[in-house]
Amino acid sequence: MTETRKQAEQARSAYFKLANVHRTQILKDMARAIRERAPEIFAANKKDLEAAQGKIANPLYKRLIINDSKLRDLADGIDQLAATPDPVGKVLLETELDDGLTLRKVQTPIGVIAAIFESRPEVVGQIAALAIRSGNAVLLKGGREAAHSNAAIGAIIHDVLVQHGVEGAVQLVSTREEVTQLLAMDDLISLVIPRGSNEMVQSIQNGTRIPVLGHADGICHVYIDAAADPEKAARIAVDSKAQYPAVCNAAETLLVHRDFPAKQKVFDALKKAGVELRMESDFGHEFLDLVMAVHVVENMDAAIAHIHQYGSAHTDAIVTEDPGAAHRFLNEVDSAGVYWNASTRFADGFRYGFGAEVGVSTNKTHARGPVGVEGLLIYKYNLIGNGHIVATYSGENARPFQHRRIL
Amino acid sequence: MTETRKQAEQARSAYFKLANVHRTQILKDMARAIRERAPEIFAANKKDLEAAQGKIANPLYKRLIINDSKLRDLADGIDQLAATPDPVGKVLLETELDDGLTLRKVQTPIGVIAAIFESRPEVVGQIAALAIRSGNAVLLKGGREAAHSNAAIGAIIHDVLVQHGVEGAVQLVSTREEVTQLLAMDDLISLVIPRGSNEMVQSIQNGTRIPVLGHADGICHVYIDAAADPEKAARIAVDSKAQYPAVCNAAETLLVHRDFPAKQKVFDALKKAGVELRMESDFGHEFLDLVMAVHVVENMDAAIAHIHQYGSAHTDAIVTEDPGAAHRFLNEVDSAGVYWNASTRFADGFRYGFGAEVGVSTNKTHARGPVGVEGLLIYKYNLIGNGHIVATYSGENARPFQHRRIL
Repeated sequence: MTETRKQAEQARSAYFKLANVHRTQILKDMARAIRERAPEIFAANKKDLEAAQGKIANPLYKRLIINDSKLRDLADGIDQLAATPDPVGKVLLETELDDGLTLRKVQTPIGVIAAIFESRPEVVGQIAALAIRSGNAVLLKGGREAAHSNAAIGAIIHDVLVQHGVEGAVQLVSTREEVTQLLAMDDLISLVIPRGSNEMVQSIQNGTRIPVLGHADGICHVYIDAAADPEKAARIAVDSKAQYPAVCNAAETLLVHRDFPAKQKVFDALKKAGVELRMESDFGHEFLDLVMAVHVVENMDAAIAHIHQYGSAHTDAIVTEDPGAAHRFLNEVDSAGVYWNASTRFADGFRYGFGAEVGVSTNKTHARGPVGVEGLLIYKYNLIGNGHIVATYSGENARPFQHRRIL
Repeated sequence: MTETRKQAEQARSAYFKLANVHRTQILKDMARAIRERAPEIFAANKKDLEAAQGKIANPLYKRLIINDSKLRDLADGIDQLAATPDPVGKVLLETELDDGLTLRKVQTPIGVIAAIFESRPEVVGQIAALAIRSGNAVLLKGGREAAHSNAAIGAIIHDVLVQHGVEGAVQLVSTREEVTQLLAMDDLISLVIPRGSNEMVQSIQNGTRIPVLGHADGICHVYIDAAADPEKAARIAVDSKAQYPAVCNAAETLLVHRDFPAKQKVFDALKKAGVELRMESDFGHEFLDLVMAVHVVENMDAAIAHIHQYGSAHTDAIVTEDPGAAHRFLNEVDSAGVYWNASTRFADGFRYGFGAEVGVSTNKTHARGPVGVEGLLIYKYNLIGNGHIVATYSGENARPFQHRRIL
């Protein structure tokens, strides 16, 4: 048995134990331990930063830094999760099928989750906390550039878990070969959550039979309708593209109704914000930079068809003062986020008020859009009887079910 | 482009059109057309039955028969679906992120679904109706033995869809090669629902990157605790195994606490019901017949460990008069259905009161257990602003979000 398989089996057995431990106390202890042992984290992070200096791009380097404020946010975030009601065991539905035969749909964790991410080391603490809150075990694979920082945070979490007897519930795996092994263990791992580049996510989606929660592309559109307010159109186009171009919810393509009279005003605002416009080309390309494709469309149907053809079903916005057009767009565009007179950049779990974010999903099943802790939950059915058998409800003289909804 | 790909593209374009048609009226028209054109269905079914006579096993032959009562049930079931509230567009959550910036989580269909099933031709009508109720398009592949019956029902549905301008929304595909092609179209098809033999479902699960909703194995357990009532233990063991042994929710293994005093009474009841008992062997085997493996365990922990090791996380039951043991079992066993003093045979959408059943899922994501129409639904986020941009909420002097929960 490989070391990775041993880790996955330990995770599975810790997952079963998690059902019976004080998960809220674990979270509180994690937050406190991270605050108390901050110097260890800073020292490890210093090693990563020294090794990375000059070797990785500046945005990546910035994301690698753990400073006082990032660490405070992490610990505070875990305390906030500890203060939310325990989602495990929540009764979602209760029906009396017949006298004395009660069906309950009960919220449960999913099992063992594999989270694979790049650069930002505080993700170790965030995902570990989300997993514990929802009763799941998690195997974490971070980027090599953050190895020391990840290990320091992982060691602190490990010590807390040992105290609660569930030390296998959060584990780091460290090599790339181990990822390949993890992705093959569909008998032990129930969900894979990748967070990183398009290429990284796509290679994971193609390389596993385990369900993958996430998104590869973020091809978002802003459609400026004939009846758009020019001021709002310019604001929203600029914010959607230029407020932070390197992220998945930044817009890549501007669709403009041919009868919108203030096209030039919008183009000028984008150029002023440093955006290079590519007319009638590069549709469906994720620039992740200050570049935007522009396409003039005959009508809204053409805009919607363009979005369905070239988009990645992430987030798409219409700018219009016409409520009829807006409602058609909101209804018909088949994306995780469909907006009216708002920037695509709002597609984010914190902005949506979910508190903590597992990631953004463009899946059509399980969880879609920015995903909070509910993406780590499923349910089971408990049926409580008193010797009830199906023969009673079958054949001639079958007794009918009552199906009295209780909750 | 292959014929199958054309069908899938037509399904996708019909799926977009389904957003704007009167889906409830389609269901009513479908039910009426099936009643009015029943003679066509019976004539086609006669052909299938004649061809099958003596060539397929008796249970399969029985499932192939469409009689008056089955057809009435089908049409009545579709009328019942038509009478349920439209699930599409239901607002699941509403939050005001800030003044004039409202987030709505809205229930939506999934997209194009491929349903692959064997023998029972009325499934064509049932799945078509479930798909239309939930706004999804569906490609259906039935068994060759039911080809005429499936085609007759498919043609009636087709005529109704033509009247509503969404003729691509329900389509039959007919050859096995087409299934392989369907399973490769992860750009067009969002969910695969197989219903049939273990081998059929497993080969589909292994052969596609599209999410699969269903189950291959049904390895269900009945655990008789030390504190079980002997009468109930015998009733539940017999019903779980012998009431209908050829189905997924029939129990395959009987686990008995070594201190349960009335073992022989339970074994005798099973033997009297025609069940062959295999002592301490064949764990994790799905007999689908009047055969049951028996294992005596040291304690409940051993029973739970056995279920987690050999089970398929379908449905498992405890028989006990000890509420503490029962609650531990209900809480700790990680299966889609976990029962106390009730037969495993209750695991079924109709018995649960879901009205119509898509299938039974042993997945840990999206939908688990018997799945009704909600398994064909997901959601999107609509965000409605008035020129709101993320820059307002970023950097120094960032405006805070309000996150006022409205619904």
